[in-house]
Amino acid sequence: MGRVTTRRPVLRIDLDGGERRRPDTLVVEEPLEIRVDGEVLTVTMRMPGHDVELVHGLLRSEGVIASKDDVTSARYCVGAVQDEQGLQVNTYNVIEVALLGQRGLPVSTQRGLVMHSGCGLCGKTSIDAIRQSLPGPLDPDRAGGLAPAVLVRLPDALREEQTVFSRTGGTHAAGLFTTGGEPVVVREDVGRHNAVDKVLGWAVLEEMDVRDLVLVVSSRASFEIVQKAAMSGVGVLATISAPSELAVAAADELGITLAGFVRRRSLNVYSHPHRLASSP
Amino acid sequence: MGRVTTRRPVLRIDLDGGERRRPDTLVVEEPLEIRVDGEVLTVTMRMPGHDVELVHGLLRSEGVIASKDDVTSARYCVGAVQDEQGLQVNTYNVIEVALLGQRGLPVSTQRGLVMHSGCGLCGKTSIDAIRQSLPGPLDPDRAGGLAPAVLVRLPDALREEQTVFSRTGGTHAAGLFTTGGEPVVVREDVGRHNAVDKVLGWAVLEEMDVRDLVLVVSSRASFEIVQKAAMSGVGVLATISAPSELAVAAADELGITLAGFVRRRSLNVYSHPHRLASSP
Repeated sequence: MGRVTTRRPVLRIDLDGGERRRPDTLVVEEPLEIRVDGEVLTVTMRMPGHDVELVHGLLRSEGVIASKDDVTSARYCVGAVQDEQGLQVNTYNVIEVALLGQRGLPVSTQRGLVMHSGCGLCGKTSIDAIRQSLPGPLDPDRAGGLAPAVLVRLPDALREEQTVFSRTGGTHAAGLFTTGGEPVVVREDVGRHNAVDKVLGWAVLEEMDVRDLVLVVSSRASFEIVQKAAMSGVGVLATISAPSELAVAAADELGITLAGFVRRRSLNVYSHPHRLASSP
Repeated sequence: MGRVTTRRPVLRIDLDGGERRRPDTLVVEEPLEIRVDGEVLTVTMRMPGHDVELVHGLLRSEGVIASKDDVTSARYCVGAVQDEQGLQVNTYNVIEVALLGQRGLPVSTQRGLVMHSGCGLCGKTSIDAIRQSLPGPLDPDRAGGLAPAVLVRLPDALREEQTVFSRTGGTHAAGLFTTGGEPVVVREDVGRHNAVDKVLGWAVLEEMDVRDLVLVVSSRASFEIVQKAAMSGVGVLATISAPSELAVAAADELGITLAGFVRRRSLNVYSHPHRLASSP
């Protein structure tokens, strides 16, 4: 599915040790064009691999699909182009999605067609938009009994699965874990949104019920990460670093337990702490 | 211009010290809708403030404008909406831009109208697209003589200006510095792309020649960050963490000196090291 790292020469300058030229391992970043029923939905820069998962996760996050049954097909653009040497190649950077019934994209995801009401756009508008797209309210009884002592170990557990990061330092990661701390799936990408989409898209394709799982992300919690968690029905979102106010407000209103600054011996809980087991 | 931080209660769990509820300071994240000649260009989630700079930086990065003379006006949507209490409010989250001659957006920035040739999309396509939009090649003689001992101090200098980060841990930052290490402008945002756009948009509005300056970003170097640097004519881009392969390839082809893993006593130079002064 494409290489994910490559080697290039780098000039290493150490103020205490001089200069030397040596090979460095870099993460690969390539554009991915996603076409839905013949129309370009978006072009995202991503680490190649798990692209069909990425597309399913993105479409679910945007409310375009609810399950894999809504997707008739999702495959790389078929055909080849001539490269500079005249060879026929396919770059595997274009994915064509056909939706059930060739229904095309909903108006809300088509840029330029939506004009919000006057000057009143605000964070609440964004949260309301998610609520209207949600399949249903989150179940407050799912993903419960999560022990803080387990939760604080998940960032390290995520890092252990980050094989590309360990070689390049250039990826974010997202993973789904059981409330017992076992990894279910971990994906890496140059963008944290893509890493989350790959994980949640994997769950769509596997028809995995994620409501009892914990989504861990190697970054801050932005509004859009909370949106993706909510659209998939994840009950607990844990991030290594800080959330934004809108991420907290969205998690609070949508029923998600949001933990931030999850470090080895401590964490902050910003919303719905009821899913956490009391400390012993 | 909006507040940039807020306080909310958080449940702090310390495995060694128990639980307590205390107020936490969070960075504000709000949507910004950008309309160009009456059409929605994009909605981006950003930290409020410096929005007109953000818009100018984004439009320059996308090749829509070359200077501030191309913008007839850029202002918040005028008018008010009724909030839930019946009060008239303006959220200052919608900016309306009028371009010189009401020319509207170029086709290349309108989603859905561009269909790339067949299946051949690749990183090189993306680099070629930038090259075609560039006002001209970067001057290899500008921003020269930069001492590595100065460069390694810039991440700390950037951090010192990050007032919102110091209170929230929730922002990225970008800054322009002289080759002597003096800060020219620093901006923060919940998104690193927005922080870069705010800095480069400031330069557009100030009609500042950035070709002798160093752009420092508190993150990894992705392709899109290199794109923004190139479109503004910045000769040196320095980041705290790793670049992607495509970021390095783009910097190499477009004439930018790209430094990564810039730490206190060392750094990696991935392209065009000629701008760096030799170590003593």
